Amino acid sequence: MNILLTNDDGIHARGLAALYDEFSRIGRCLIVAPETEQSAVGHAITFTKPLTMRKTMHNGHYTGYAVAGTPADCVKLGVRILSEETIDLVVSGINRGANVGINVIYSGTVSAATEAAILGVPSMAVSLDSRKEEADFTVAARIARRLAFRMMERPFLKGVTLNVNVPALPEEEIRGIAATRQGATQLLETYDRRTDPRDNIYYWLAGETILPDEDDEADAWALKKGFVSVTPIQYDLTRYNVLKQLAEDLRDFS
Amino acid sequence: MNILLTNDDGIHARGLAALYDEFSRIGRCLIVAPETEQSAVGHAITFTKPLTMRKTMHNGHYTGYAVAGTPADCVKLGVRILSEETIDLVVSGINRGANVGINVIYSGTVSAATEAAILGVPSMAVSLDSRKEEADFTVAARIARRLAFRMMERPFLKGVTLNVNVPALPEEEIRGIAATRQGATQLLETYDRRTDPRDNIYYWLAGETILPDEDDEADAWALKKGFVSVTPIQYDLTRYNVLKQLAEDLRDFS
Repeated sequence: MNILLTNDDGIHARGLAALYDEFSRIGRCLIVAPETEQSAVGHAITFTKPLTMRKTMHNGHYTGYAVAGTPADCVKLGVRILSEETIDLVVSGINRGANVGINVIYSGTVSAATEAAILGVPSMAVSLDSRKEEADFTVAARIARRLAFRMMERPFLKGVTLNVNVPALPEEEIRGIAATRQGATQLLETYDRRTDPRDNIYYWLAGETILPDEDDEADAWALKKGFVSVTPIQYDLTRYNVLKQLAEDLRDFS
Repeated sequence: MNILLTNDDGIHARGLAALYDEFSRIGRCLIVAPETEQSAVGHAITFTKPLTMRKTMHNGHYTGYAVAGTPADCVKLGVRILSEETIDLVVSGINRGANVGINVIYSGTVSAATEAAILGVPSMAVSLDSRKEEADFTVAARIARRLAFRMMERPFLKGVTLNVNVPALPEEEIRGIAATRQGATQLLETYDRRTDPRDNIYYWLAGETILPDEDDEADAWALKKGFVSVTPIQYDLTRYNVLKQLAEDLRDFS
């Protein structure tokens, strides 16, 4: 089995190393990841300029390609160019911090996995619900490996990627695994208004996440209650249930 | 009516000027747009560094804020900070080139409109199916203005943004307006492999769009046949129709 590993925290992130430790037990791992942190780049891709990359070694531990690009670039390049064999599975992560609710839209980690789905490759995004520097990724990596191995050939998941979020708990305290929807978790954003040394005004995005969704089927809420949350994610953004009404409404538009 | 205009081609793009000409007839327009081209940035937002901006004038024509950030940043800043009054409508575009099929995922133009929907503001992304430098945006701008005015208060479109693509045709040759889904148009991508002056290998994304969807309900196909395509777009990425099966499948996972 040929596995492509990537992330958005950059090739030297501990979450990626944890994925490598687990997934190299079940297949050959090719690592193609951004050379620097790419958080919140969403589904950006690079085509107005070229992509440079270099082979790099992480702590004598694994070798991979560090790409001056986005997570979605890494998946395209890895699947189309850098792998000599067909990639069977793409795993993105492990992100430091959950990717739930509206954050799914902004997440480079999730977009990398979605890109794999677009390319027709089974995939999964994995995030740990902790932003601590010393967070322990080993439990999340083990769950991700078992889940990927199990789900990657399910016909009903063809074209779908799985967005997996793991509570930052010891394995025995995790209460189970839940199929969830992307919840309505929002960001309550503010911008700090600041002045630079030359008296120009600039703004810096601040703010906090709010959790309106007290519902086990919502990703953030399941996670908060100690479950691993697994959300099936698609790249067709059409809101189908208004299509008919929209068509009727547009009938007399001229 | 307070209208925020933005785009991903940058504040000096002709497509934005065309929007301004039309929408300033029906409301006060605030322009907040990237200072440079931001194509294919998807739903990237900026929070690891601050956002700088400057007030700028376009050809003595309109004044706006040029932001060193992404289209989604522009919408957040415009709605939350830079407008003194509540924004009633966000229009993004007019993009030079269609945003249909899989391109919807990568598009900064569409992501700006989606960001408005996330913030609870009615919105629309507008693209012209021409990449020519001298393309005529006036027909598309006029259609966008009439369509926005009509649709912005429709209750069934609450939380939904409209992705509008206009054929590059004289008005009398446009065959009508169609409610469409995001089609299965794919990119057949290749990477040019090149060598830099210091003998390093680099890659440059190339490739072409393919149109597998011969179906009037698909955005690209309607557009190709001379219709204005209007796709309702949502930001909940959950693939609901597999949730139940996924839950069953995960029941014995441990």
